[in-house]
Amino acid sequence: MDLSLLTELQATQPVVVNYANFVTPNFVANGLNALGASPIMTQEATETEDLLRIASALVINLGTINQQHEPLVWALCQSAAKANKPIILDPVAAGATAYRLMTALRLLKEFPIAIIRGNSGEIAALAGVDWQAKGIDAGEGAGDLANIAKTCAQKYHCTVVLSGETDYIATEDNVTLVLNNTTLLPAVVGSGDLLSSIIGAFSGITDNYDEAAQIGCGVLACAGEITSENVGDNATGTFSIRLLDTLSRLTPDKIKKILKTR
Amino acid sequence: MDLSLLTELQATQPVVVNYANFVTPNFVANGLNALGASPIMTQEATETEDLLRIASALVINLGTINQQHEPLVWALCQSAAKANKPIILDPVAAGATAYRLMTALRLLKEFPIAIIRGNSGEIAALAGVDWQAKGIDAGEGAGDLANIAKTCAQKYHCTVVLSGETDYIATEDNVTLVLNNTTLLPAVVGSGDLLSSIIGAFSGITDNYDEAAQIGCGVLACAGEITSENVGDNATGTFSIRLLDTLSRLTPDKIKKILKTR
Amino acid sequence: MDLSLLTELQATQPVVVNYANFVTPNFVANGLNALGASPIMTQEATETEDLLRIASALVINLGTINQQHEPLVWALCQSAAKANKPIILDPVAAGATAYRLMTALRLLKEFPIAIIRGNSGEIAALAGVDWQAKGIDAGEGAGDLANIAKTCAQKYHCTVVLSGETDYIATEDNVTLVLNNTTLLPAVVGSGDLLSSIIGAFSGITDNYDEAAQIGCGVLACAGEITSENVGDNATGTFSIRLLDTLSRLTPDKIKKILKTR
Repeated sequence: MDLSLLTELQATQPVVVNYANFVTPNFVANGLNALGASPIMTQEATETEDLLRIASALVINLGTINQQHEPLVWALCQSAAKANKPIILDPVAAGATAYRLMTALRLLKEFPIAIIRGNSGEIAALAGVDWQAKGIDAGEGAGDLANIAKTCAQKYHCTVVLSGETDYIATEDNVTLVLNNTTLLPAVVGSGDLLSSIIGAFSGITDNYDEAAQIGCGVLACAGEITSENVGDNATGTFSIRLLDTLSRLTPDKIKKILKTR
Repeated sequence: MDLSLLTELQATQPVVVNYANFVTPNFVANGLNALGASPIMTQEATETEDLLRIASALVINLGTINQQHEPLVWALCQSAAKANKPIILDPVAAGATAYRLMTALRLLKEFPIAIIRGNSGEIAALAGVDWQAKGIDAGEGAGDLANIAKTCAQKYHCTVVLSGETDYIATEDNVTLVLNNTTLLPAVVGSGDLLSSIIGAFSGITDNYDEAAQIGCGVLACAGEITSENVGDNATGTFSIRLLDTLSRLTPDKIKKILKTR
Repeated sequence: MDLSLLTELQATQPVVVNYANFVTPNFVANGLNALGASPIMTQEATETEDLLRIASALVINLGTINQQHEPLVWALCQSAAKANKPIILDPVAAGATAYRLMTALRLLKEFPIAIIRGNSGEIAALAGVDWQAKGIDAGEGAGDLANIAKTCAQKYHCTVVLSGETDYIATEDNVTLVLNNTTLLPAVVGSGDLLSSIIGAFSGITDNYDEAAQIGCGVLACAGEITSENVGDNATGTFSIRLLDTLSRLTPDKIKKILKTR
């Protein structure tokens, strides 16, 4: 993992345009800000070219996608493609509703998505794997999860992050694991959304999307571990706030000390 | 009050679909999550059947309802009714604008609402009581507030929660009072929204909506009291975060020790 | 600066209607609440008259303005003008996209805006000053920033707040500086939005919009300074929460002790 990317991100403060869901935009924006990136959100299709001109990356989060917003999302992706900026797709609940799965598939077909970031259920749905029926669990079927991530990467010819207790970062022919974690991180609503946007920020400063995805996972997983050390059991509220403090103070050295990859 | 429902909720993690206002969705989702429930928000009318199939309850919050969202809200309620899942209505500011009152009344007429949760002004507006003119105040006119809640329950044939310094849980022929409280809870924007969604979560695990409403009120009022013990005067920000910690650690025993009902 | 306005605000709790962006409404609402004002958000054009009747001021924040919301924003401004309530305009990113600049200019042309609050880039864009090209920086070109604020005030015949490390409050013929600050405040997403709404709350209790803008800036800058004393370096998450605590406990005396103006 190229930890110098963190130093570069803090120095260059890349602008990340987010099509955010309406549940977690504040947490995502504060998290990006704390890390050193510059978040922008928009809901207006006619300003996407202006925004993507100054932006380094685009993150599309399907958390509360709806038909009325489709022209906006399409305009954002078109503007990103035109400006040659990477697009990160977070297919929230693609495994839960037909509309979300279909929307994610349409975006993957029409635009050059650089990185997909989802949980096991979401990535399995995109990979076309019957994840529920096989009863795979992030805690046990590690090998299977790596395969699901790689299958998804091969299907859509992009980098895929299947995040959870372990994060699997898959390219078409390789899978890297980030093993750091804390039970508190998944208990915070929007931690997955934030991971996607952090990965987006890193994809804005390197053309190597595999590296961008790896350090994005490393940054959030290690920040989570560091934060959980000073927070009591199950203190999910306090954890979510102190996580922002940790992100504001993060250095490559702090990550290096605890990072566990495979 | 059946405190075993808390243990059951933590074990079964019911999915609660929320039509949320755009001001407090993050606080409500984190609060539900901390308690042990699984929040989902949506803004797309064509995915409501998929969501209500996996959900245990639907909460409709009118905090930022608008005409553009009416098809979504109606689709959610239709899907809930079809799937036989309880609907909780939070008529935010029904006493303040004609549009919100009319929308609440239309929903109450067209759908089998299980529980209404509002403050005194909102419940009075639905009950058709001229609350402002009578100068009733949550601090004083306790008897009157109980009557307003019961009148509302009788009018709409459902359980009604009139929440405030004291919470009044009314069925058509009975009113239960939860007397626990703290001045810090109403100072947090969205504490009422969270109460409605917590009640919704409990209504997803018992058909006794009176019980669901009672324990919902007991859980939040007691969590508020517990949290306020360790927080300085008027520390509304710190309180809001530590409340999530308390909810994450709540047990029937902790509630039992301090619960005051009548 | 008339610090008695803080006491009056806490006593009268003015209702502030906010057309908020979807990223920071919770932070803004909690901040207004903590200060002692009563926030209301809406997304429905037919209830604007009902709301502006009970409101003391209207704040229009362009953070996620879009064409679908224009009828709502126009209805809000018409209702405010009709009810003779001050309108505060926050032209978020007016310097970044043509759509936002055009929308801000249309609002300034059609409605009697009382106060504009923006950062240097936004106010320069409205003033018609080529701010970027001149390379002005909030840290250095203090004289220039004061001129930009005054130029903007003269152009639109209203009070203008150009906020940053130093806040410049300009009328057509005078500029007041609030020199208090902390590096933590700008690191919190929505601190500018909150400043606009706090100024809005004060404009609801005095016809002297210059005074309203001054005390609004004084309140937030001093609350920021007070909060930063007890918060570690770069602890942006903890700062954002404790800022709400500070606002809940603020008094004219606490401000008086540290206020630095010119």
